[in-house]
Amino acid sequence: MSAALAEARRLAAEFRATAAARDLAGGSPTAERNRLRASGLLKLSIPSQHGGHGAAWPEILHVVRELATADASLAHIFAYHHLGVITPHLIGTPAQRDHWYARTVNQQLFWGNSLNPLDPRTTLTRGDEGTLRLNGEKSFCTGSKDSDVLLVSATEMGEPQLRVAVIPTSRQGVLVNDDWDNMGQRQTDSGSVSYRDVVVYPAELLGPPGPGGSAFATLRTCITQASLSNIYLGLAQGAFEEARQYTRALERPFYGSPATHATDDPYILQRYGEMHVQIAAAGALLDTTATALQQAWERDTALTADERGTCAAVIATAKVAAARCALDLTSQIFEVMGARATSGRYRFDRFWRNARTLTLHDPPDVKTREVGDWVLNGRFPNATFYS
Amino acid sequence: MSAALAEARRLAAEFRATAAARDLAGGSPTAERNRLRASGLLKLSIPSQHGGHGAAWPEILHVVRELATADASLAHIFAYHHLGVITPHLIGTPAQRDHWYARTVNQQLFWGNSLNPLDPRTTLTRGDEGTLRLNGEKSFCTGSKDSDVLLVSATEMGEPQLRVAVIPTSRQGVLVNDDWDNMGQRQTDSGSVSYRDVVVYPAELLGPPGPGGSAFATLRTCITQASLSNIYLGLAQGAFEEARQYTRALERPFYGSPATHATDDPYILQRYGEMHVQIAAAGALLDTTATALQQAWERDTALTADERGTCAAVIATAKVAAARCALDLTSQIFEVMGARATSGRYRFDRFWRNARTLTLHDPPDVKTREVGDWVLNGRFPNATFYS
Amino acid sequence: MSAALAEARRLAAEFRATAAARDLAGGSPTAERNRLRASGLLKLSIPSQHGGHGAAWPEILHVVRELATADASLAHIFAYHHLGVITPHLIGTPAQRDHWYARTVNQQLFWGNSLNPLDPRTTLTRGDEGTLRLNGEKSFCTGSKDSDVLLVSATEMGEPQLRVAVIPTSRQGVLVNDDWDNMGQRQTDSGSVSYRDVVVYPAELLGPPGPGGSAFATLRTCITQASLSNIYLGLAQGAFEEARQYTRALERPFYGSPATHATDDPYILQRYGEMHVQIAAAGALLDTTATALQQAWERDTALTADERGTCAAVIATAKVAAARCALDLTSQIFEVMGARATSGRYRFDRFWRNARTLTLHDPPDVKTREVGDWVLNGRFPNATFYS
Amino acid sequence: MSAALAEARRLAAEFRATAAARDLAGGSPTAERNRLRASGLLKLSIPSQHGGHGAAWPEILHVVRELATADASLAHIFAYHHLGVITPHLIGTPAQRDHWYARTVNQQLFWGNSLNPLDPRTTLTRGDEGTLRLNGEKSFCTGSKDSDVLLVSATEMGEPQLRVAVIPTSRQGVLVNDDWDNMGQRQTDSGSVSYRDVVVYPAELLGPPGPGGSAFATLRTCITQASLSNIYLGLAQGAFEEARQYTRALERPFYGSPATHATDDPYILQRYGEMHVQIAAAGALLDTTATALQQAWERDTALTADERGTCAAVIATAKVAAARCALDLTSQIFEVMGARATSGRYRFDRFWRNARTLTLHDPPDVKTREVGDWVLNGRFPNATFYS
Repeated sequence: MSAALAEARRLAAEFRATAAARDLAGGSPTAERNRLRASGLLKLSIPSQHGGHGAAWPEILHVVRELATADASLAHIFAYHHLGVITPHLIGTPAQRDHWYARTVNQQLFWGNSLNPLDPRTTLTRGDEGTLRLNGEKSFCTGSKDSDVLLVSATEMGEPQLRVAVIPTSRQGVLVNDDWDNMGQRQTDSGSVSYRDVVVYPAELLGPPGPGGSAFATLRTCITQASLSNIYLGLAQGAFEEARQYTRALERPFYGSPATHATDDPYILQRYGEMHVQIAAAGALLDTTATALQQAWERDTALTADERGTCAAVIATAKVAAARCALDLTSQIFEVMGARATSGRYRFDRFWRNARTLTLHDPPDVKTREVGDWVLNGRFPNATFYS
Repeated sequence: MSAALAEARRLAAEFRATAAARDLAGGSPTAERNRLRASGLLKLSIPSQHGGHGAAWPEILHVVRELATADASLAHIFAYHHLGVITPHLIGTPAQRDHWYARTVNQQLFWGNSLNPLDPRTTLTRGDEGTLRLNGEKSFCTGSKDSDVLLVSATEMGEPQLRVAVIPTSRQGVLVNDDWDNMGQRQTDSGSVSYRDVVVYPAELLGPPGPGGSAFATLRTCITQASLSNIYLGLAQGAFEEARQYTRALERPFYGSPATHATDDPYILQRYGEMHVQIAAAGALLDTTATALQQAWERDTALTADERGTCAAVIATAKVAAARCALDLTSQIFEVMGARATSGRYRFDRFWRNARTLTLHDPPDVKTREVGDWVLNGRFPNATFYS
Repeated sequence: MSAALAEARRLAAEFRATAAARDLAGGSPTAERNRLRASGLLKLSIPSQHGGHGAAWPEILHVVRELATADASLAHIFAYHHLGVITPHLIGTPAQRDHWYARTVNQQLFWGNSLNPLDPRTTLTRGDEGTLRLNGEKSFCTGSKDSDVLLVSATEMGEPQLRVAVIPTSRQGVLVNDDWDNMGQRQTDSGSVSYRDVVVYPAELLGPPGPGGSAFATLRTCITQASLSNIYLGLAQGAFEEARQYTRALERPFYGSPATHATDDPYILQRYGEMHVQIAAAGALLDTTATALQQAWERDTALTADERGTCAAVIATAKVAAARCALDLTSQIFEVMGARATSGRYRFDRFWRNARTLTLHDPPDVKTREVGDWVLNGRFPNATFYS
Repeated sequence: MSAALAEARRLAAEFRATAAARDLAGGSPTAERNRLRASGLLKLSIPSQHGGHGAAWPEILHVVRELATADASLAHIFAYHHLGVITPHLIGTPAQRDHWYARTVNQQLFWGNSLNPLDPRTTLTRGDEGTLRLNGEKSFCTGSKDSDVLLVSATEMGEPQLRVAVIPTSRQGVLVNDDWDNMGQRQTDSGSVSYRDVVVYPAELLGPPGPGGSAFATLRTCITQASLSNIYLGLAQGAFEEARQYTRALERPFYGSPATHATDDPYILQRYGEMHVQIAAAGALLDTTATALQQAWERDTALTADERGTCAAVIATAKVAAARCALDLTSQIFEVMGARATSGRYRFDRFWRNARTLTLHDPPDVKTREVGDWVLNGRFPNATFYS
């Protein structure tokens, strides 16, 4: 096990102890964010020449998955931090890439996401002296609270391409609204951010190529989708492990069981078998996916549209399996724990609430269709912010 | 539509308006319980010669189902009230049957349930002057708070058969602990009740025959199971209807949809089709089940063990279908509503939380096995408190 | 049980004895067709004033279902015979209706189907002396071999509406090709029929209203779909019953079973429970469907498009459930029988082959979508030959 | 791609061309067996020092999978040949291992299997001059026809351990009955073999350690199970590919489709997506499984019971996934091909018949239970001939 994964496991153990209470509380996991900062894992994806760990995607995604076993909110924030960190590399200039890698290390930046491309309410206007002004609202801004910098997308009049900028969260006019109160992923701070005449400097606009400006630039979506998939699997594994401990601690079998111990009940054994098969299959698929992503990543700007398309299709396949696994297991665990496991003190429903919320990031049925179009017709998923 | 069902529909409309808020609040639905009292529906199952509505089981169960479309907690309390009301008929003497029917009407009693036979901690001891003393604890006492009378089970030293008594909830030594805080069915007041040297008069002990004392006495479980099954279906229908209204109000199709309106999206249509097939199948099955129950009920004490067994098996079959329908639909609705439907203001997750909690009443896998043993081997489910 | 159903049960017992051998042989079940003729059941759907049994749809469909438990091919031929018999009633003039009812009784006609509207290769041309000439080919002509009359559809130049005629199978120029050799429904004689300058008399053209000429005329599809659905269920029941007898006769449990008899194995019991739940649910749904069909049928030409639409949607719902039941059970039975049940002497695979073949009559996914469009948008299935 | 896999692909292309016809014919695929002989692939698993290819398990299993895409019968025969070839290595003495490896190469032996341990009808008795006599019957003797040597198991009076011998198929008294006529795997020659006073020389009895005599000896079952799993996946892939070509060749969309080409139909695309997800997941799992098997294999006689147990559990997990994939896909393909694909000339049902037959080798439900017992309780599958 890598040092990073070992550290993730330690953090997960800590986070697990308070996950139920924090799910109830909602709001921002400040203490846990600080633990992430202190752990050094925010540098995981940063190349070593810039002072980072230089981890490859299989390792990064394993760390995401590990954190998700304890707390899918923190795994989400963590994954989206790295998604931010590597965005200048993908869609910015080489100078921007180097600048943000180095600055993230030096200033220990924690990245938040305000890029939601489905929300069209943000605009950029050219102002005096070459600066721009950002105005509007963004919803689903994961990790925005307590972040140091924010990725934000906006449209600029007369510009067909969406603009993406990195700005300090503390800049005048940025208002993180702290209004996330959804049924799942409750500590992701995925609420709205308001921008009121926020100054944006030209150098903060990423690109060229900018979003969609090259096959490599659009690899960002692949990383998003791979990250989400690993959170799905991690939270399924976390639910499974909670259930396992609970079943093993049951003092007597369920009413009507032919067995003398719950752990020998034929239906409980069957369900554990079923659940493990799903976890193992999704895990094996995700592992091959991570390798494919790493290969695409290493192609850097030489990545072709076809290579990107294959990578996206492979990830979409794994995502469908991981999402199904997460939804199924987080409900099924109750069959092997029984009625008393619905007690409010456990908050075991949080696994399902997290899975149900997060798997709606983009429509699962659309993803399945994309996979079908690929295998039947050889068409790649359109390179967009969602596929 | 019967007058009772029409009244239930009016109540459901009222309850629906506050269901999300009350799910958040938990605790006891006092105002809604008073509405049930005022509606006269607490007399629904009481024969007309005793001043009740004299409804047959198909009608009673439809009312339960209708209430469950709005609020599965209130449907549960309501169904268990009637389960209480008819218990003296099933396991008591004819005099007890008549007494409690009449008294329920005259004093407008609301029955609570403290009978949980899996919890063995209550005992009865013979005291002075022919009275008995009840001591101990019961968990999962649905509808105990704000009830007028409680059904309670206990063991008496030297007596092999479980004792069941009806006592006023206000009696000295009865403590309703108001400690229900589970993930679902949050307003069922299914917490614990403590008994401290509570006087029980011999006439309050139901029977002969007492629980298990005759085939007809054990029909009580069939009524429990049929009631639960109708709650499952009702809550699935409620979730479906919320989803339907939500989808129809969507302003644009999901990202990646080939349709221009969400209501024309092929995958959304497919999912609605799938969901309706499940609801319709479970509904058709439950309707035939209610007829079978009514036939068994009308046999009264002439009911044979085989007739009871067939009725139990038929109900078990329907229960498996209804439980699956409830679990599946309450999760699947999110696929046709999308990510914004996870907002805390809707609390749409309550449908799943209710379904997940209530379907654990007794183990679903055991129920399926019972059905199998019946169709393969012709063996009836054991006549117990759970099957 | 009605006399007709009792007779069907006797026939089913006979047919069952040879079903495996006839599945292997393929071809036409001449002896069994003669048994159907002799049974009088070919008159089942004919009103009593015309000398028939005057059975309502619930009874007719139960007879179809009963035959399907033994042999889905014969059930198919039988159902399509009745579909033919009532076609003049639905799409013909009152005189045609009466004529064909009476003639079917008097001449003991067995109807075959050559109506396949997806196959556009047949044409009608006006010839001398007012007669028409029919030319072309039709595929999937169920029951054509050994039939006395054939329903046939064709297009006539300049006529927008499809023409449907009834002609004697023995007429000059009609060639039943006896070329059905598919993987399932092997004795349905669903091969092709060729027409070479076949004379068609004007009176043989059904209508007005003709196909699609009224809401009642389009009820024909509802009857087709209800018939198919009952065959699905019947064949599932037949497979289940074969499995049940096989399991009960097993001398020892499967390898690795915790039970001492196969009939006590927890997984075998579970699977029987699962299978029965599916059968019972589809059965309850089909029974309500048959009632709805009968109500629509009794409306006769007063049937409105909306009433027809509701009936079609209700039947589509049941068909989805029945098809799924048939496909699932006919594969799952092997889990409760084991490897030796794959022996060629049983031909137990015929149940799956029949289910798989017949459920493709029209696309199941389209049916599910139709149900969704109805429950979400209140749109009825288009009144066509398939929905 | 390795040379062996490339050769397998060539053979698969040949076998595919005649697979439907040979499925109909049943019997022994003599020509194809000769092609396997000529290909050199019968030496695939034999170490290079003995003149074989020295392939590792991942490669051998990929070759099995590749053959199964064309013909699951030939893949089965091929896999069981290798299972035979390595049996002396696993359960024999080092001398027996070397002898049979070398002899298989030198004499180009094709191995058949007559080991069925569930069939107890074969016995060995000590005769004159140190030889033994084998008598009795064995069922399910895959690959026995046209084999050069047979593995056979039998009990010897007074010996608790089952005996396993390798004998020439041509030896006096061995009668391969050529009586396999099952619904699937029709060219596996899995019929019965009769033994009438067959001489068995002591050197032909494998061991020590003999079957079950060491953890390494019991690895044989792991190889059986991994082989079967790869056949499951291969045949699913084969069915998928046939369907894909068929759908792409459809001239028009299905009735009721919203698309203008079948390949753009949303439900067809969805089903291809679903099917691919299953194939990809099972494939990823099997690939990791093959690696685990190779590691265990390389441990040779140093393999511990725990290492063997882990390997067995990992393989059981993959087998459950692969079996489900095979059963589901071989039925689902018809949804994307339509009714005309049931024509007898395609024999597309053979995929399901093969999957359904082969997945009953040992009970799937037992396998799932084993996986559950492992993940819940840490108990390894019992080391037997089936797990």
